Amino acid sequence: MSNKKEIIAGIIIIGNEVLSGRTKDINTSALATWLNSLGVKVKEVKIIPDEEQIIINTVNQYRSLYDYVFTTGGIGPTHDDITAESISKAFNIEYGFQKEAYSILENYYKPGEFNEGRQKMAKMPVTANLIYNPSSGSPGFYVKNVFCLPGVPSILQSMLGSLTDKITGGDPILSETISLRTVESEIAKSLTEVQNKNKDVEIGSYPFFKAGKLGVAIVLRSTNKNKIEFCKSEIIKFVQDKEIQIV
Amino acid sequence: MSNKKEIIAGIIIIGNEVLSGRTKDINTSALATWLNSLGVKVKEVKIIPDEEQIIINTVNQYRSLYDYVFTTGGIGPTHDDITAESISKAFNIEYGFQKEAYSILENYYKPGEFNEGRQKMAKMPVTANLIYNPSSGSPGFYVKNVFCLPGVPSILQSMLGSLTDKITGGDPILSETISLRTVESEIAKSLTEVQNKNKDVEIGSYPFFKAGKLGVAIVLRSTNKNKIEFCKSEIIKFVQDKEIQIV
Repeated sequence: MSNKKEIIAGIIIIGNEVLSGRTKDINTSALATWLNSLGVKVKEVKIIPDEEQIIINTVNQYRSLYDYVFTTGGIGPTHDDITAESISKAFNIEYGFQKEAYSILENYYKPGEFNEGRQKMAKMPVTANLIYNPSSGSPGFYVKNVFCLPGVPSILQSMLGSLTDKITGGDPILSETISLRTVESEIAKSLTEVQNKNKDVEIGSYPFFKAGKLGVAIVLRSTNKNKIEFCKSEIIKFVQDKEIQIV
Repeated sequence: MSNKKEIIAGIIIIGNEVLSGRTKDINTSALATWLNSLGVKVKEVKIIPDEEQIIINTVNQYRSLYDYVFTTGGIGPTHDDITAESISKAFNIEYGFQKEAYSILENYYKPGEFNEGRQKMAKMPVTANLIYNPSSGSPGFYVKNVFCLPGVPSILQSMLGSLTDKITGGDPILSETISLRTVESEIAKSLTEVQNKNKDVEIGSYPFFKAGKLGVAIVLRSTNKNKIEFCKSEIIKFVQDKEIQIV
């Protein structure tokens, strides 16, 4: 096993629609799953409104705290899309047309359709690098360790592939789930004992309701497959003793 | 129209399962929708891991910044449920059995079934007030302006009703959605003009894909119904001029 240091990320979800409850954020889950597979651990997520000073402050705080920062939302053509301009200010880089983005969008739209709103999507920190968008033309961008993605989940997800080689993570974070037909309080004590003996494995316990029955999902997470397997064997041991059904 | 000051809240989602991407957070949406109806605006959400010092710091920061703070997750019986003990430390209140909670749980379970794991759910800041749980017995609790709820969405939602009279909000935040068969860039300029003339209404623009077609949902939010209606009429005006279909 290698001993790379832990590589960590923070995610900033930008959007009044999430804070108002209208939209459920599913981008955190997509980003975190993808980052885990690259050996990057998400340490914190903040959901903030479409307000320039808040975006600037949060981005500047996160980019010094985390190896990688991802923002979602606010890079479209409308008045409430202020992420690109805020990022420019956070980095103190001129906000204007990024030439490559302008050219991509100019080619993407039919002649005469590349209007003011669409042109706005080519405006960003002028020296930013692009994140290509196979779904809808309009690219995301990154400056140093801050990667700016759109809020629409299907588009965001389509853009992650091209980003993979920009992220240098540690060992992939592996996980294994054991689903049991029991309730948490029946296994709490035994699980604590296993956790205390296996400090390097993060053990989570999550109740679920499926097909009208209660259950508990035990999730083991670690970069070390052997440690997960050993931990799992200790759990299976007490599960057998208690005659709990594995589902 | 009254002139109550804005009442604001912060939400702290506690749980490694959300940061790892395994679980999508839907509690923010439920809490924010409920709070909006009570005239409370959510200003920020943080998703943090099950780590004591992080919970303590975040709770202490939020409770001084916001009128109301809500935490979700980490109040169950297992080793990774450390919210109650962390809240005790944040407030410097003894962590132990809250008598009413103990009695509720003792009555809830059959004799002999009130085991160590279940007893743990009665442990919290000893002077905390309870939030009753009609779904599964085990109560949440609050200390001053910090309300601690479970992570399981159905249980959390069942507990909000009994909390309503504990929250003193401002005017309810109203919203109106106009769904258009168009793309954002077609309306961006006109929408900016409407926003500039209607500063008291928060106008959001959100692309959607439904039944294979593109559309844009325009969401108007304000505590003032008349201002929303005026703003809406101005949007309808340019929508008609552009011959955009309302859906």
